[in-house]
Parts: sequence; C-alpha cells; structure tokens
Amino acid sequence: MGEFDLIDTFFTHRWPARDDVALGVGDDAAVLNVPSDSQLVIATDTMVSGVHFDEQTPARAVGHKIAAVNLSDLAAMGAEPTWLSLALTLPEVDEEWLTSFSHGLREICEYYDCQLIGGDTTKGPLTLTLTAHGLVPRGQVLRRDGAKPGDWVYVSGTLGDAGLALACQQHQQSISDSHYRRVLERLYFPSPRIALGQNLRDVASSAIDLSDGLYSDLGHILKSSQVGARIDVDELPLSLALTESVDADTAINFALTSGDDYELCFTVPESKRGVFDTVMARHPAKPTCIGRITNQPEKLRLEREGEPWQGLDKQHGYDHFG
Amino acid sequence: MGEFDLIDTFFTHRWPARDDVALGVGDDAAVLNVPSDSQLVIATDTMVSGVHFDEQTPARAVGHKIAAVNLSDLAAMGAEPTWLSLALTLPEVDEEWLTSFSHGLREICEYYDCQLIGGDTTKGPLTLTLTAHGLVPRGQVLRRDGAKPGDWVYVSGTLGDAGLALACQQHQQSISDSHYRRVLERLYFPSPRIALGQNLRDVASSAIDLSDGLYSDLGHILKSSQVGARIDVDELPLSLALTESVDADTAINFALTSGDDYELCFTVPESKRGVFDTVMARHPAKPTCIGRITNQPEKLRLEREGEPWQGLDKQHGYDHFG
Repeated sequence: MGEFDLIDTFFTHRWPARDDVALGVGDDAAVLNVPSDSQLVIATDTMVSGVHFDEQTPARAVGHKIAAVNLSDLAAMGAEPTWLSLALTLPEVDEEWLTSFSHGLREICEYYDCQLIGGDTTKGPLTLTLTAHGLVPRGQVLRRDGAKPGDWVYVSGTLGDAGLALACQQHQQSISDSHYRRVLERLYFPSPRIALGQNLRDVASSAIDLSDGLYSDLGHILKSSQVGARIDVDELPLSLALTESVDADTAINFALTSGDDYELCFTVPESKRGVFDTVMARHPAKPTCIGRITNQPEKLRLEREGEPWQGLDKQHGYDHFG
Repeated sequence: MGEFDLIDTFFTHRWPARDDVALGVGDDAAVLNVPSDSQLVIATDTMVSGVHFDEQTPARAVGHKIAAVNLSDLAAMGAEPTWLSLALTLPEVDEEWLTSFSHGLREICEYYDCQLIGGDTTKGPLTLTLTAHGLVPRGQVLRRDGAKPGDWVYVSGTLGDAGLALACQQHQQSISDSHYRRVLERLYFPSPRIALGQNLRDVASSAIDLSDGLYSDLGHILKSSQVGARIDVDELPLSLALTESVDADTAINFALTSGDDYELCFTVPESKRGVFDTVMARHPAKPTCIGRITNQPEKLRLEREGEPWQGLDKQHGYDHFG
C-alpha cells in the first residue's frame, strides 16, 4: 500500500465534512473560509511512541488522544474547533493499527464536528503531530495573562487520575481492577473541555489547560499575569478511584504534579461570579473553586486549613529535556 | 536546558513579528486575524532524520528546508505565506545544532515575512513537522483540477538538480566539485516560488509544486483534472551542472523522476498566454513551456521530435511505503 492509497483508505471516506472547507485533502494545501467576525486559533502537539505512549496503548486511544490534547488547547482559548492537519510518521503500514488509530481519530472529529483537512505521511519512528485550528468570536479569546488579585481559581473535572494510571502502568502503584479501568480511561481517552471553554469567554479572566500538572500549569498563569495564588489542597477535586487507592497526601501530589489531566484551570473575577454560577448551572460538571489569586508575583502558596501545606514532592510537572 | 528555555533561547527573540498575529508563542494556542477578503491556506510537511535528510545535512539546511518545502506548497496555491507552527522532536538538546537550525529557519521566515506562532518540542527520534499558513484573495486559489485540453504546460527553474546531488551523496553518480556545489545548494536550500505562484493567480488553470518529480506530480494534475498531457523531453529545463555531468537520457530521467525540485508545474490556457507573457516579462526566471494538455484522461505521453520517447526509467517519483 502506497502513501496515497493509505490516505484514501484510512483518512478520506466518510469523515466529517464542513461547509467552511473550500478545498480539503488532495491538493498541495487546504483552503478554508474564516468568518469575518472570528479570529483563528492554532495549536500544535506531538506524541512520540515510547515517550507519550507505548506499545500497550491501544491505537484507537492514540488516535483519540492526539486530537484531544490539541482540542484541549483550543478549549483553553475558548475556541470552537474546526480543522485538523495530521502528520503521521510510521515505521511501516500496519493496517490493523491504522484501522484502529483512524477510528479513534474519526470518532473525536465526528463528536466535535472537526474536519481533517490534510497533513503528511512519512516513514520513520512512530510519531504524530497534529495542528488543530479553531475559531473564536473576535476579541473574546481566553488568555493566560489576565488573572488579577482577588480572582477565584477554578479547575474542571477531577485531577490526577491519568497520572495514577501511568504510575500503575509503570508499577509504581498497585490499585483495584475497577479503579484501574476508570483511571486508564482518563489516561487514554481524555475529554477536551470545549463546551466549558466557550462558556467561559464572558466570565474568565484567564485560562489554561492542564497537560503538565496543575502546579506547573497554574504557574504559567501566575507568570503571564504577574500574580500569585493561594490554593487549598483540601479543595482539589479528586476521584474516588484516586482517594480510595492512595493516601491523602499522595492523592494531592497526583492532583498537583501529574500530567495528562486535560482539564481547564481558570480564574473568575468576583464581579463575574454571579454570571459564572448562572452559566455553570446548565453545565453537567460544575468546576471546583480551589483558591484565589494574590498580588505576589509567581508565588504559588499551597494551604491546608489556612496553614502552609508542605507535602509537595520534588517533581513539579513534566518538562521535556528538563 | 528545559523545554521552555529552549523555546526562549532559539525560537523567540528577534524573530519576525507580523501585525496580524494577535497572540503568538507562549499561550495554549496562537490567535490570528484573517482579513475578510482572503481565504486561509494550510500545508503540512514532515522531515525525518535518516529519510529526508541525514547526519551530513547541515542543520541550517534542515531549518531552511522544512520551511521551504511547506512554502512551496503555498506557492502552488498562489498564497502569500504568513504563519508557521513547528513541531520539533529531538533526541537531546544539542545547542550547536539548534543554533544553526534556528538560524536557517529564521532566515527564510525573515525573507518571506512569516512569523513562527507556536508548535511543540518533544524528546524522541529527530523529526520535524511544520504547518505553514498563508492567505489568498477569496476565490483566486490555484488548484490541481482546472487543466483543460489545449492548455500549455510550464515548469519554473531547472529540474533534476537536487536529484543529482542526492545521487552523488549516495555514490550513484560522480561529478565535478563545482557542479556538485551548485546542485547541493539546490538540494539543501530550495527556493519556494512564492512570487511566481502569486503572479499565476489570474492566468494559470492549474498548478502543483514538484516534490516527488515531474512525472509523478504532473500525474496528479492529470488525474485531478481528468486530462492527459504531451511533454517534449527536449524542452525540459536542465542546468549546465546536470547536462555536463550525465548523458542526455540520464539527465531527462533526473528531470522527470527525481524529487526535491520544489519548482512549480502549471498550465496556462491559450487565451491567457498574452497576459502570462506580459506578467512574466517582469519575472527574473521565466518558466519554460514543456508541452500541452490533451483530452486523454491520465495519459502522460513523453515525446522527442514528435515521436514517443521510450527512455523513462522504471522509478516514477517518490512514494513513501510504495
């Protein structure tokens, strides 16, 4: 099977098609129509075999996740996802793997009405890069640099589940089968918080998606906004799978420092809290308030019952080459 | 050096900045302003170490080429390049390599006034994926599917030079040092035909960039347009470096089947030939007319003095996994 057959077989037929795509797969480049009242939002993420996933990761999960991690970036900007470009480097044409991979990718494209508009397939060590494009109403994008002292700090979902799954895979933790299945689902099939991000456009003063762990990622908001934060570790949203599997301090460490959550962390000004609560009343999973922004630049203070919490492990979020 | 320091050190300071970038490197995603009279054009290409380049390829050439091959796709659409996203997978932080690589990439960004708006850096086997974005006036994009019987077939520049350089590197050919330096420059530092592509918007009925070799790439125009072509192999534009290094039939084979030319192949209707010649009079390197479109779908006839030319080698352009 050649390169062009591969694209035809796995990435063309019966994939979602959007009206704003003037020209999709099959020319030198794709051509898109951007509405004049919108700004274009672009995110890129790579996943490397042996680094971001391994041989035991189902191909369908790889297909889901390469899209999900990029859509999560768009969610953090308040954007609506529209078009994806996929660069796929494969050691060989493994039709079984490609069938499952393309299935996982197509499912998430269908769910979020994204169109695969192009990319490249090359031979080499298994590596995937996806560039996700989205749209946001002009001037309404969520940024990292708008947090102000007094704003409330929120996170969506529960934290640390994917990190627990990874620790189990690496034999650093041992947990019950049912809990393992739950956290593995979080590791393999993260849900980008697209609807939440769009609902935050009018209310959040800053937002970021959690890919490297809350401690590290909230640090980016603090640095960009030149503010600090007080976080109450007892308020961190934890799943039963996490709290029933490890002791309290270990659970908090997973929530603070393990990556792959793909939840949103954002700040809401006091003046927008009423609007926020009203909007969130319609939202299935209400985000959790975990603390407040302070005026001490880049100072992240972890508290329990008002006192400093000293239980943080040395590992603070994932930094390639760090 | 960590991931964020790496981006700061090599990919942020003193790079070109465009007015239409609302938010560049440093948030979850970039935010761009697309003019309402333009369509967005997106191309993605990957280069893998050991496949598309090797250890003897200078890092500056890798940086130039990963942008050039993508800009060449934009040129074939008639687009003006604007924004680049770079996914860089590195086995380690080699500061010397990164300095030269980023230098090569920044030079081409400066020349074409492109801004690097984001991307990803990850650890793994050396692989680069770049997604190039460009703009084209609404409805004026060049496509592959517009060639009509009777249109004239043109190519820019000279063909086969990069292929000759690669053959020399692989010890399949041996040529003089001065010729080798010239063709190696074509292999390492291809020039995307951006100005030509923009000048073709009003005159060409179809266009493609030559990455896999004329024979294969012209085949895409024929397939998309459901037409055929007659090509006079004596009209193929060949460099002195090529014609003085190999015999005539070998030179024609390089021109037809070797990749990495990054020239444009396009078709011009008889009715637009006057406009075309007028536009091209201002152009430094006038494209060469090599043949004509026929009404025989997907039939590419190679001729010499009106008779079929039978000298084509079996290898017809590069197909990964082929």
